[in-house]
Amino acid sequence: MSGPHNAMEPVDTVIQERIRASFDRQGLMRHLGARLGHIGSGRVSIILPSRPEITQQHGYVHAGATSAIADSAGGYAALTVFPPDCEVLTVEYKINLLAPAGGDRIEATGTVVRAGRTLTVCQLEVFTIDGTERSLVAVGQQTLIRLPGQPSGSRD
Amino acid sequence: MSGPHNAMEPVDTVIQERIRASFDRQGLMRHLGARLGHIGSGRVSIILPSRPEITQQHGYVHAGATSAIADSAGGYAALTVFPPDCEVLTVEYKINLLAPAGGDRIEATGTVVRAGRTLTVCQLEVFTIDGTERSLVAVGQQTLIRLPGQPSGSRD
Amino acid sequence: MSGPHNAMEPVDTVIQERIRASFDRQGLMRHLGARLGHIGSGRVSIILPSRPEITQQHGYVHAGATSAIADSAGGYAALTVFPPDCEVLTVEYKINLLAPAGGDRIEATGTVVRAGRTLTVCQLEVFTIDGTERSLVAVGQQTLIRLPGQPSGSRD
Amino acid sequence: MSGPHNAMEPVDTVIQERIRASFDRQGLMRHLGARLGHIGSGRVSIILPSRPEITQQHGYVHAGATSAIADSAGGYAALTVFPPDCEVLTVEYKINLLAPAGGDRIEATGTVVRAGRTLTVCQLEVFTIDGTERSLVAVGQQTLIRLPGQPSGSRD
Repeated sequence: MSGPHNAMEPVDTVIQERIRASFDRQGLMRHLGARLGHIGSGRVSIILPSRPEITQQHGYVHAGATSAIADSAGGYAALTVFPPDCEVLTVEYKINLLAPAGGDRIEATGTVVRAGRTLTVCQLEVFTIDGTERSLVAVGQQTLIRLPGQPSGSRD
Repeated sequence: MSGPHNAMEPVDTVIQERIRASFDRQGLMRHLGARLGHIGSGRVSIILPSRPEITQQHGYVHAGATSAIADSAGGYAALTVFPPDCEVLTVEYKINLLAPAGGDRIEATGTVVRAGRTLTVCQLEVFTIDGTERSLVAVGQQTLIRLPGQPSGSRD
Repeated sequence: MSGPHNAMEPVDTVIQERIRASFDRQGLMRHLGARLGHIGSGRVSIILPSRPEITQQHGYVHAGATSAIADSAGGYAALTVFPPDCEVLTVEYKINLLAPAGGDRIEATGTVVRAGRTLTVCQLEVFTIDGTERSLVAVGQQTLIRLPGQPSGSRD
Repeated sequence: MSGPHNAMEPVDTVIQERIRASFDRQGLMRHLGARLGHIGSGRVSIILPSRPEITQQHGYVHAGATSAIADSAGGYAALTVFPPDCEVLTVEYKINLLAPAGGDRIEATGTVVRAGRTLTVCQLEVFTIDGTERSLVAVGQQTLIRLPGQPSGSRD
């Protein structure tokens, strides 16, 4: 079991590059208009500007868009603490939508709570940001699995 | 507590129209390329054709896209059993990604397990469909809240 | 990935014995007064008679007691589909309490939804039984990990 | 939506007394041997000494016992921020078991993340304590519903 992660700790450049390259291959992130935010050790954030393409029926951000960036943020947070040749897949997650997400943009942060040899657990938080105001709109908990180098396309 | 729902039971045309109109207002569903499938009493399905815009880094469907249509399917399943003037919001959901989702398209089904005056619980299932083959790629469980007619934009 | 499980299929006697022996070692099950019900392939049930020792503050069955037998039922359901020398540990679960659980007894059923080489997902259901009436009081979803023969005491 | 809760803030004596009286009515807590720990504003802890009566098949604390005290801790954390005449019921929770729980005792803490008029979300943490060592063994996320004074026995 790894110790507590310090998001202030710099992340190896090779790992940063791997995360950026992986993010660029996620067609969904690009299609939604999301971008990588901070990459810290055991903590990664992703930002998604508000736009009509990500809404639900009342004009707020769709839970699916909120979840998508939260899930990716958790996955990349896990990658920052894995050996450099490992891959990650989401096993499952649970998310509570606390309040409607509007504002200029939303920001999801994934933070590693516990990293094991096989399974890693992340805490997920999503904030809505409107000018200088920032408020929590979703919290989640995610389980990820570490896979050896070549992605087998199977989590198991 | 309502009894078990029979998805074979026809759904009132007014409710069907409300669901179609609501779905059309979901910017995310249109942006992803999703379409409504079956609308039954307590059971609604949504179909999402595979395309590069919904992928994760290995080329499979992103968990966020899988979750987005599962979440919407559950929400509309709940709407089929609500009084006609009510709105629905997702409180939370949990989803297990069982296998990589590829194929021609994925299909999510939301089924009402229990409908209460305030809270409704749905079971979520997502299948990947490749030609005539159909296999389960995700299962979830969702809690929804019923709101009176005019959406207040707050779940609570 | 294993196929769908048929709870009507008889379970190997050796596996049945392993499950009974394991259940007998669970101090909590004995302390709560729970007993094993049906053992089918991919499906196991556990029964817990109502008594003051398992209540919450309003006199209904405590969510912790409901969860405890649901969690064990899912774990043993997984064991029925594992190779005979494997162990199981719960990775995580989520449970919705649908209605207060009272009655004569509650019965939890765990059913394997997907069994993989490493991870297994079960659906959990808990019913309250009062004379001849039976009603659903909780539903859950659980992730389990398969461990090789000698329990290492660590899930990971 | 209430603001962030400060667990250092003293809790009204009336509310403390209500929580203690409610805890004493929980047959399960007494049967397991659990006792109330700290009661702060939006944060409550419950302690459970290790003993054979709460174990699973390998001699560690059963996930059901871990969950039971985590669930109660979250419920009482919610009560500390409710108006004095309200009741609370668990809607659902999800818990990840991070490591086997042994040690002298386990301690669960429930912390209110967001308190709404109808629904409240708590974060759950469980530590194992062995002498002076303390390590995280489970994390969870819980949804609770606030009910008016007289418990109706129904969450909905």
